[in-house]
Amino acid sequence: MSLLVIGSVAFDAIETPFGKTDKIIGGAATYISLSASYFAQPVNLVAVVGEDFPHNDIELLRSHGVDTEGLQIRIGEKSFFWKGRYHNDMNSRDTLATELNVLGTFDPVIPNAYQGCEFLMLGNLAPSVQQTVLNRMFKRPKLVAMDTMNFWMEVSPSELSQAIAMVDMLIINDEEARQLSGEYSLVKAARIIRDMGPKFLIIKKGEHGALLFHGANIFFSPALPLEDVFDPTGAGDTFAGGFMGYLAKTGDISFDNMKRAIIYGSAMASFCVEKFGTERLIGLLQQEISDRVSDFIMLSQIDMEFIS
Amino acid sequence: MSLLVIGSVAFDAIETPFGKTDKIIGGAATYISLSASYFAQPVNLVAVVGEDFPHNDIELLRSHGVDTEGLQIRIGEKSFFWKGRYHNDMNSRDTLATELNVLGTFDPVIPNAYQGCEFLMLGNLAPSVQQTVLNRMFKRPKLVAMDTMNFWMEVSPSELSQAIAMVDMLIINDEEARQLSGEYSLVKAARIIRDMGPKFLIIKKGEHGALLFHGANIFFSPALPLEDVFDPTGAGDTFAGGFMGYLAKTGDISFDNMKRAIIYGSAMASFCVEKFGTERLIGLLQQEISDRVSDFIMLSQIDMEFIS
Repeated sequence: MSLLVIGSVAFDAIETPFGKTDKIIGGAATYISLSASYFAQPVNLVAVVGEDFPHNDIELLRSHGVDTEGLQIRIGEKSFFWKGRYHNDMNSRDTLATELNVLGTFDPVIPNAYQGCEFLMLGNLAPSVQQTVLNRMFKRPKLVAMDTMNFWMEVSPSELSQAIAMVDMLIINDEEARQLSGEYSLVKAARIIRDMGPKFLIIKKGEHGALLFHGANIFFSPALPLEDVFDPTGAGDTFAGGFMGYLAKTGDISFDNMKRAIIYGSAMASFCVEKFGTERLIGLLQQEISDRVSDFIMLSQIDMEFIS
Repeated sequence: MSLLVIGSVAFDAIETPFGKTDKIIGGAATYISLSASYFAQPVNLVAVVGEDFPHNDIELLRSHGVDTEGLQIRIGEKSFFWKGRYHNDMNSRDTLATELNVLGTFDPVIPNAYQGCEFLMLGNLAPSVQQTVLNRMFKRPKLVAMDTMNFWMEVSPSELSQAIAMVDMLIINDEEARQLSGEYSLVKAARIIRDMGPKFLIIKKGEHGALLFHGANIFFSPALPLEDVFDPTGAGDTFAGGFMGYLAKTGDISFDNMKRAIIYGSAMASFCVEKFGTERLIGLLQQEISDRVSDFIMLSQIDMEFIS
């Protein structure tokens, strides 16, 4: 089934204890689309970049089965840019620069060819833009998931609440879940957030894995224990892309299938952090992905026959 | 098969955001023994208390199948006492008082009836005392596990290294693993620690679960997501007690069985934090334990047939 992704396509400049990059391709929709492309093609992309965005990077997306008809290129304007530096523990970072540029006036246009998409991933963007996208879909998708961040909770809480009330699933990290709900306990936070509208909630805990909530059910998937995390940028979006891509591939939104999708999302995120930016998500082999999924199975699954 | 536990039996005074206690029964060996008693009885206990230790608390241990022949009662002396206050996030605590008392001169004596024990859990104590216990066993147990803490890494690093080199398994938390190895990455830390001697290593991550390392294998078990953690005191020892108790019950030290033992240990720890001190570990029903284990299975296990 088909997947539509909206979000930022942008430049990042990243510093980690292992080194630093110049401006490289980044943005939520970039990571989501590349990751999803290993499961469902085409990935239909709605985003905006400036004239400065390299043709090569657009070609890179296309070569991974990303349909870029919905990617607006604004002549005479500049692409969104983020610059950040990670601390030694890789769990916290300082934002050194944010230049909104084209994102400040983004008016998302859905190409006709994208209408009828059954899975919609609203990557982190202004909640008003997320709402606009959903309102411009002629038919409600089978599953609508969205991400957000602390910034929107502070700057536009009412638009954010409206957007959250419209979607089936929220995918956010633990810090965001705590801020959004005002509760430290993630179990309590999950109840409050689901009372805001979404039937499904995923709370990403970075190196500590991810939790899926639905009804009275909770599922937990670990992150793969790694020798080194080289660059965590985009890991959360890569997780979301693998998760939504696997659902779009299988077309099955049962809780059991979402468990599997979380394993695939976690596997994709474990690749992402191994190199700078999107580097490790380029040209991955299906065999590498299934080997990595097997690592997750070995890591977390037990012989269940012992329960008496 | 039989289990021998050494460690502190003591008084604790605990403050959490939910309330505070007077002096209540605590100590590593208390939590380990109570937890293990739900799987293997008798639990043979080697420890020391002062004349001030209530007869009722010793009876409590006995009523849970703990053999107290190895519990020394020192007339005219006082029991070990710890007083601590947890912060709001429950992940950090301040020690307000530590009175070593009888533990300062503890000379562990192994009753003849305890010789031949096949499972030995060396709870957190001075590493020289841990070594003495192992040296006083006539026959090497099938599995020797030990816990330790940051204090011994600073105060007696060489005795600690000697003790670690003697055991089959080390069970410590993530902070301790990082300090012991000098490595932040737990995968790297695990390699360094196993090079010190133990074939098996468990790294406890509190609310983030636990990792088991052996050879090239890693297994991860989550902690149960809880509404509230009422009091984390003793959760790590309760985990170790459930783990060792399950191994002693089954007599099987294969990696696959250790995975199951970790689920049981995690289930026991999830009870421990629900009330102050040992309160929730008293008089647990087997049905409560199997229901809790089922919760863990629901939380972490998937239908594995999908892997192609």
